Amino acid sequence: MSIPFKLHEDRFFDSNPTVRNVARDLYSLIKNAPIISPHGHTEPAWFAENKPFPDPTELLLIPDHYVFRMLYSQGVAMEDLGVPTRDGTTVEADHRKIWQIFADHFYLFAGTPSAAWLTHEFVEVFGIDEKLTSESAMRFYDHIEAQLKKPEFLPRAVLERFHIELLSTTDAAESRLEHHKTICESGWKGRVIPTFRPDGVTDIARPDWQHNMNALREVTGIDITNYASFITALEKQRAFFKTMGATATDHGVLTPYTNRLSSSMAEEIFQKALAGKSDAQDAAKFTAHMLMEMARMSSEDGLVMQIHAGSLRNHNKIVFDRFGLDKGCDIPQQTEFTNNLRPLLNAYGNNLDFTLLLFTLDESTYSRELAPLAGHYPAVKLGPPWWFHDSMEGMIRYRQSVTETAGIYNTAGFNDDTRALLSIPARHDLARRMDCNFLAGMVAKHMIDFEEAKTLSQELTTGLVKKAYKL
Amino acid sequence: MSIPFKLHEDRFFDSNPTVRNVARDLYSLIKNAPIISPHGHTEPAWFAENKPFPDPTELLLIPDHYVFRMLYSQGVAMEDLGVPTRDGTTVEADHRKIWQIFADHFYLFAGTPSAAWLTHEFVEVFGIDEKLTSESAMRFYDHIEAQLKKPEFLPRAVLERFHIELLSTTDAAESRLEHHKTICESGWKGRVIPTFRPDGVTDIARPDWQHNMNALREVTGIDITNYASFITALEKQRAFFKTMGATATDHGVLTPYTNRLSSSMAEEIFQKALAGKSDAQDAAKFTAHMLMEMARMSSEDGLVMQIHAGSLRNHNKIVFDRFGLDKGCDIPQQTEFTNNLRPLLNAYGNNLDFTLLLFTLDESTYSRELAPLAGHYPAVKLGPPWWFHDSMEGMIRYRQSVTETAGIYNTAGFNDDTRALLSIPARHDLARRMDCNFLAGMVAKHMIDFEEAKTLSQELTTGLVKKAYKL
Amino acid sequence: MSIPFKLHEDRFFDSNPTVRNVARDLYSLIKNAPIISPHGHTEPAWFAENKPFPDPTELLLIPDHYVFRMLYSQGVAMEDLGVPTRDGTTVEADHRKIWQIFADHFYLFAGTPSAAWLTHEFVEVFGIDEKLTSESAMRFYDHIEAQLKKPEFLPRAVLERFHIELLSTTDAAESRLEHHKTICESGWKGRVIPTFRPDGVTDIARPDWQHNMNALREVTGIDITNYASFITALEKQRAFFKTMGATATDHGVLTPYTNRLSSSMAEEIFQKALAGKSDAQDAAKFTAHMLMEMARMSSEDGLVMQIHAGSLRNHNKIVFDRFGLDKGCDIPQQTEFTNNLRPLLNAYGNNLDFTLLLFTLDESTYSRELAPLAGHYPAVKLGPPWWFHDSMEGMIRYRQSVTETAGIYNTAGFNDDTRALLSIPARHDLARRMDCNFLAGMVAKHMIDFEEAKTLSQELTTGLVKKAYKL
Repeated sequence: MSIPFKLHEDRFFDSNPTVRNVARDLYSLIKNAPIISPHGHTEPAWFAENKPFPDPTELLLIPDHYVFRMLYSQGVAMEDLGVPTRDGTTVEADHRKIWQIFADHFYLFAGTPSAAWLTHEFVEVFGIDEKLTSESAMRFYDHIEAQLKKPEFLPRAVLERFHIELLSTTDAAESRLEHHKTICESGWKGRVIPTFRPDGVTDIARPDWQHNMNALREVTGIDITNYASFITALEKQRAFFKTMGATATDHGVLTPYTNRLSSSMAEEIFQKALAGKSDAQDAAKFTAHMLMEMARMSSEDGLVMQIHAGSLRNHNKIVFDRFGLDKGCDIPQQTEFTNNLRPLLNAYGNNLDFTLLLFTLDESTYSRELAPLAGHYPAVKLGPPWWFHDSMEGMIRYRQSVTETAGIYNTAGFNDDTRALLSIPARHDLARRMDCNFLAGMVAKHMIDFEEAKTLSQELTTGLVKKAYKL
Repeated sequence: MSIPFKLHEDRFFDSNPTVRNVARDLYSLIKNAPIISPHGHTEPAWFAENKPFPDPTELLLIPDHYVFRMLYSQGVAMEDLGVPTRDGTTVEADHRKIWQIFADHFYLFAGTPSAAWLTHEFVEVFGIDEKLTSESAMRFYDHIEAQLKKPEFLPRAVLERFHIELLSTTDAAESRLEHHKTICESGWKGRVIPTFRPDGVTDIARPDWQHNMNALREVTGIDITNYASFITALEKQRAFFKTMGATATDHGVLTPYTNRLSSSMAEEIFQKALAGKSDAQDAAKFTAHMLMEMARMSSEDGLVMQIHAGSLRNHNKIVFDRFGLDKGCDIPQQTEFTNNLRPLLNAYGNNLDFTLLLFTLDESTYSRELAPLAGHYPAVKLGPPWWFHDSMEGMIRYRQSVTETAGIYNTAGFNDDTRALLSIPARHDLARRMDCNFLAGMVAKHMIDFEEAKTLSQELTTGLVKKAYKL
Repeated sequence: MSIPFKLHEDRFFDSNPTVRNVARDLYSLIKNAPIISPHGHTEPAWFAENKPFPDPTELLLIPDHYVFRMLYSQGVAMEDLGVPTRDGTTVEADHRKIWQIFADHFYLFAGTPSAAWLTHEFVEVFGIDEKLTSESAMRFYDHIEAQLKKPEFLPRAVLERFHIELLSTTDAAESRLEHHKTICESGWKGRVIPTFRPDGVTDIARPDWQHNMNALREVTGIDITNYASFITALEKQRAFFKTMGATATDHGVLTPYTNRLSSSMAEEIFQKALAGKSDAQDAAKFTAHMLMEMARMSSEDGLVMQIHAGSLRNHNKIVFDRFGLDKGCDIPQQTEFTNNLRPLLNAYGNNLDFTLLLFTLDESTYSRELAPLAGHYPAVKLGPPWWFHDSMEGMIRYRQSVTETAGIYNTAGFNDDTRALLSIPARHDLARRMDCNFLAGMVAKHMIDFEEAKTLSQELTTGLVKKAYKL
């Protein structure tokens, strides 16, 4: 019953031969370029400890919110997929059983990027040559489980094998970066660098804010009792992150509203937060102010500032209460950049030393707001299509919507933004194919020539990302 | 002067041969599948009475707001098209004259779905083999008029001839479903079922609300004097609709805002409405509350809940005052689902017995809000592209925008949503062609294989619609 | 080192041969049709004085905000590009040096319409047959400079050479139209007509409002002391513009909000404005009211009303303070038409003598609001894709989004909307190619036949624009 399967060498390319042939030629020139992964959510501990990954389910399914989101939407309980509960209620522990459920439902992913990435992983990473079906599920499990025990599947070996030249993790502002230290000191030549993500201390509405603040006090040795000492602590940690190799910060916000508070107002809100008395409006104001402060610090220390805006976190209270953060129930909402970012851009957007990378989940902003902003302000560059839009069609819409106003050179290459280590080569390969296909489309319409397309494909693969992230 | 015409067998398919050939193959497998029409606005009386349709103008033009909207936009008076006025002022009564005006202006529809549907009807339903022009207008009229007198053009015969296995009408909550009863009792084996549409009694701002409430009192025998008896009456009518074959409800709202009121607040607003003293704000709150109640009832009685959101009805006061409802002057507006539906989804969205089908006129919500919601909540499925977007390009945008996040299986097949009986086979044929072409595009890019495409084309044609509507 | 270059005859056409061949055939029929340019920003003085253009940099770079916007976004100072400052601070005066900087950065425009237009100008207007690179920069400069001295590059000769049958300029309401008078009196047979643009006097928030009002008083001889005399002055100037050949007005607004004020309220706000005491809210109300008044006047005098909505002007305060208006720092924002235009359309939208042309920078409004409005109201027609969307992909999105609901005949042909005289043939050629390619796509999908496509291509090239602008 085994159904033979291999990846088609022309996958994702336009089937029109004029475009496909150019896409093929461009792709052949860049497909083996090293991978630069400047933004993502892999665990630094993996590379510090370099221990084998436990089993296929633990590695590929349980942490992948793309996977359990789709199965949940079709009526599969998250408990049956082994997603751990916050209160420790037992969930399915038989990883073969979970893998079987996944295989039984794999047809749901037809046409989705998850199918593309997972299929790539099965074939290219694990060397499987049949289709995943209910029938083949256990053969997959056995095969992958056996592979994971081999030295070439240890985390560091994976980075080397897939030419991941640089991998950036995302780390709380209050982190001690212990694992990064271990990696540095280990003598291993792989480059795994941190990213400074201060949301846990800049968003005073978070339930864990006091906890995070205590950690910040501890790591900096600064007794944060007022706004000024808070800023000093942040600056100290940014400097520390820089010494550990960081070149960027990251900020997740519901809206990209920016607005500088007076010192006294900032102090007042900060004191209310310390006293546990701040409200939602205070938090919104403080976040808007802290984005200004982060831009100010970036203008001074050169760390590239990333803003990921527009995700309404934990939309589903029942799922959130039971399973916690990042469990597939974040839903995008309308996002406004033109007015919201104006104060920040008026203050820092003309600064040649400042780089602001913008990410959106609201595609209507591509041509309306983001491309015009990136096509004018020296500081602004556009991050690649994010999350739900990190997909074949999503990439096409992005390039078609932003290129004519912002040009290729005001974009920042590709981000995989993933927690799923083994999907990194899959995601970069997909992005490279889509970029080559986009350029091939322009060549086929005689908008650029092949030489220009070659240069642009190299820029899109490694040049622009290195420039944007100051690597 | 007759210009010969026939439908091209590859119409609407991509002209790239790789895609077209696969599309053709897929289409050949499903083109003859029975038609399931789970949502629309045909008249149940047609099938109860089974009388011949009067003439081409009465059947094809006067009730089709797509037709007179376009002609009106180009300066043709609606009176000259025979659209009846509310006050009974005379309008053009010569149906041949109206048909001639329509034919003279048929060029305006180039590239629109109306042209595609009407052309399909002329050729496939009436067997005409020339183009509609000013010159051929009267030949068309004569031919269609003659055809309509034949038994195979009686309403029931049309359903049988075009394999319309199920047809759902849309019926006021206070309806006695007399015609559906007649159909049931007639022994005819066609399946024409009602849909429960309670807007007339849940929207307290409607001018006809008191009138509709009286009808609801009468049909249920319940003396509705307070909110509790109102709810009881609605539940009684839902149960009655179920016994008559209904599997779904339908709700037309300007915004999909949902919010549960306290019992006392619901009672207070309801009493104000009864006393004729409620205002626009009361109505908005009450509608938001009633959506919650309808979701609650659907979770209990299993009727599938449809929300059609975002149409600003009767935008043009002059046209509305003269011609009344549904005369082509409804205009879409921006629509927000993420925040508006959150209360409803938090209360009922995780319920496996509840199905909520969402329809939008704001395409920017496809990838931003609707696909992420459908790709997470077990209850949510996406209705097909609605109204202005039920078109060739509209269908492409829909599939390209929602598939990668929601998958194919969180969508609900096709709806024709029409008042125009003879357009049903045309609309389903067009949708089947577009779906096959979309799947062929994925095959051509090696994202799915032909076997998967076959399965998906069958799901899109009949499987998903039966599942979504519990048929 | 010269790299040979010529324009490909199939540029911008779909590379799929079925589509391309039809596009070619259609294009061959209309490519030489005269150019009608009903909306733009060229200087009437050029045609009145008919003096040679000074040099390549002065002609092609300094006034082109598309050019310096892109270079500024990549870190090139606007001073180094010779953009004049408001305070007269010296900027680069060596035009060869500026041209060299431009050539060094020309690669940034890959894939943008600016590259397409400029390349067309180099080849078709100046007869250059190599690529613009750092190396060839000075050869380009020398060649263009020499050409500009020839009689065939005088402004009037350019109009004749490129068959620009009609060119419309944009002129302040208070203009005396001196240059237009000179043109008329010169006996030259070229047709350069004015457009009435009253923003300078209808937007009471503008810093130059009092100044513009004085000019309006002077030109009309009316002592404008109250709202009534203001209206009289505007009506007088509209009548004057009509005698000078104007057929249209133009209105640039942040939002298309329309609302009629009571006479007393209009008077009250107008008096506050005269006294320098009106605030932002007054200005918004007054603008909304003046749009109503302009529609009323258009219904009476027949001037076609254009609304360009949604550009947030002078987003970048630093650039604005230093370089002034129109320096590339206008950024679009979300725009709402359905509710905002309702008062105006209810009052005048059913009037067959009134034409309202709508332009947007928010593409999400195409299918959601604009096409449904144009597909219903007799007065509404859609202007072509504007500014950032006047591009290859922008045109595709526009046609794909509006055609199915509004039809081709509710659109208004092409506008170049440019300050760059020599880009006019380039822009029209690009638009013609894109329109032929769009129609060819419909032919290839058997939605229309070749004969229909021929008619439509002629309409899109000259028919619709003449009808929409009453030319």
